[in-house]
Amino acid sequence: MKHFADRLAAAIERCANPCLIGLDPHIDLLPDEFALARDRNAPRAARARAIGDFCCDVIALCRGRVPAVKPQSAFFELFGADGVAQWERVVAAAHAAELLVIGDVKRGDIASTAAAYATAFLEGVGGDAESLCDAVTLSPFLGADSIEPFLGACQRTGTGIYVLVRTSNKGSADFQRHGAPQLSQRIAERVVEWGRGLIGESGWSSVGAVVGATHAAELREFRESMPNTPLLLPGYGAQGAGAADIVDAFRSSSGATQLAGALVNSSRGVLFAHRDAAHKGKPWRDASRAALEHMIADLTGALGATAK
Amino acid sequence: MKHFADRLAAAIERCANPCLIGLDPHIDLLPDEFALARDRNAPRAARARAIGDFCCDVIALCRGRVPAVKPQSAFFELFGADGVAQWERVVAAAHAAELLVIGDVKRGDIASTAAAYATAFLEGVGGDAESLCDAVTLSPFLGADSIEPFLGACQRTGTGIYVLVRTSNKGSADFQRHGAPQLSQRIAERVVEWGRGLIGESGWSSVGAVVGATHAAELREFRESMPNTPLLLPGYGAQGAGAADIVDAFRSSSGATQLAGALVNSSRGVLFAHRDAAHKGKPWRDASRAALEHMIADLTGALGATAK
Repeated sequence: MKHFADRLAAAIERCANPCLIGLDPHIDLLPDEFALARDRNAPRAARARAIGDFCCDVIALCRGRVPAVKPQSAFFELFGADGVAQWERVVAAAHAAELLVIGDVKRGDIASTAAAYATAFLEGVGGDAESLCDAVTLSPFLGADSIEPFLGACQRTGTGIYVLVRTSNKGSADFQRHGAPQLSQRIAERVVEWGRGLIGESGWSSVGAVVGATHAAELREFRESMPNTPLLLPGYGAQGAGAADIVDAFRSSSGATQLAGALVNSSRGVLFAHRDAAHKGKPWRDASRAALEHMIADLTGALGATAK
Repeated sequence: MKHFADRLAAAIERCANPCLIGLDPHIDLLPDEFALARDRNAPRAARARAIGDFCCDVIALCRGRVPAVKPQSAFFELFGADGVAQWERVVAAAHAAELLVIGDVKRGDIASTAAAYATAFLEGVGGDAESLCDAVTLSPFLGADSIEPFLGACQRTGTGIYVLVRTSNKGSADFQRHGAPQLSQRIAERVVEWGRGLIGESGWSSVGAVVGATHAAELREFRESMPNTPLLLPGYGAQGAGAADIVDAFRSSSGATQLAGALVNSSRGVLFAHRDAAHKGKPWRDASRAALEHMIADLTGALGATAK
């Protein structure tokens, strides 16, 4: 099955939950076992390997439990070429663990450059298949011609994109709410257009949208204006949104709950659970496993309760 | 001298021109000497090395003639970790040739992630000083909290940023002209605020703005609304803008021409001049050198004529 949204819907159904684990290896927050990553006197390659080791351990916890992971490029780029080598290792490890990989890269550039990014992350240059992503996040700021090269790549390779529509951070209001209609609504209209040619057998498009779970009041509107668009919801957990905030993102126009309608992301809440008071004294893997199971139960509970 | 805008102003004065050469090694356009980059059966590291070799040769042409170069990250990321290793080599080579390096990365992400990008490109993790950029381009789409971590990095390290305000591509109108006032104008106001604490002895801020030379009619307005902001103007040459289109970007409120007011970028027009009919049959280095000298003469002519 080569269509991204169909593969995603199948993975969500198989795991019976819409959890997405963000692989954001902040070096300052890593468990002591990976303290080498913080050592400015250690060789860069060894420091980068430590963040790769950590992510591979998290992937082992995720295996079979959640449909997808979302590595954040910045934390790998921190270590330059050594970090990108670990990005490739982590992406390949996630694929080996049968997890879909959404590369959180937020790229956005003029058409010829966008084409190079599409090749870099989705199509490959040859010999790099296992380190390619199933989908990437994109910034729409440069307009339609910055997105279009990716649509071709999605068609050719069965991959997907998630366009930033309304991000989870406080500053997102600065420009994304500009104008009337708000910029985010205008972008949502274009996301629907871009996704029209990429709707799969599942009824979902391979062109998704990022909408912060922290804007609970807006989720219903975005769900209605983008009915075939898989959503990616950052902001659950550490950023403040709870399970009750996200249910509207899963509700169809008829009121039914569609589990494949969105992915809910948690990064720090799972990766760095060992730092939370609730898990004090636990080995980090136990803390992360408990946080992951809590997230799954929390979301399936909230969604089941509204499914009827 | 540690302040980015002061270093830039000095470099522009030393070279007596505001030319910025974009290092965009499109593999399909490279001279035959670098055809290995296109060979899908060659090892990735060898292919990546070919684009690095090409960029280093272009840097040799630029040495002493122009103040700065602008490598485009996408064409390096194409080759994964091997490409990023070449990015580091090219940045270091440009520094060795006494060229300022503006990394065209167009990153934009939430605050903790933005901080990682700022470290990756401007501050370093230790032992990577020679491969850091003097400035990077940033997308403002996520708002003020996505820019602020870079301001701290600029203060600490004497580096700079160029915020995308109005890009040179056709699709830039899709969202950048949204609302009233237009989004780009709103962003320009914020660029001035962000740059206020980073104004150097030259009078210029280390917070710059990207404004497409293809929007000649808007340049005067952007120059007036951002009086201390160094502009970066893509779109000259291959994208269609000529020397007459960019003079307003250099004009102060009193009407004087300030050479340090903007950098004018050309990528393909110089790198791939061997493909132009005007240079048919010339070895690529001769074609590129001629195109570079033509650009310098074209811009200094247009700016000198309006300086008075």
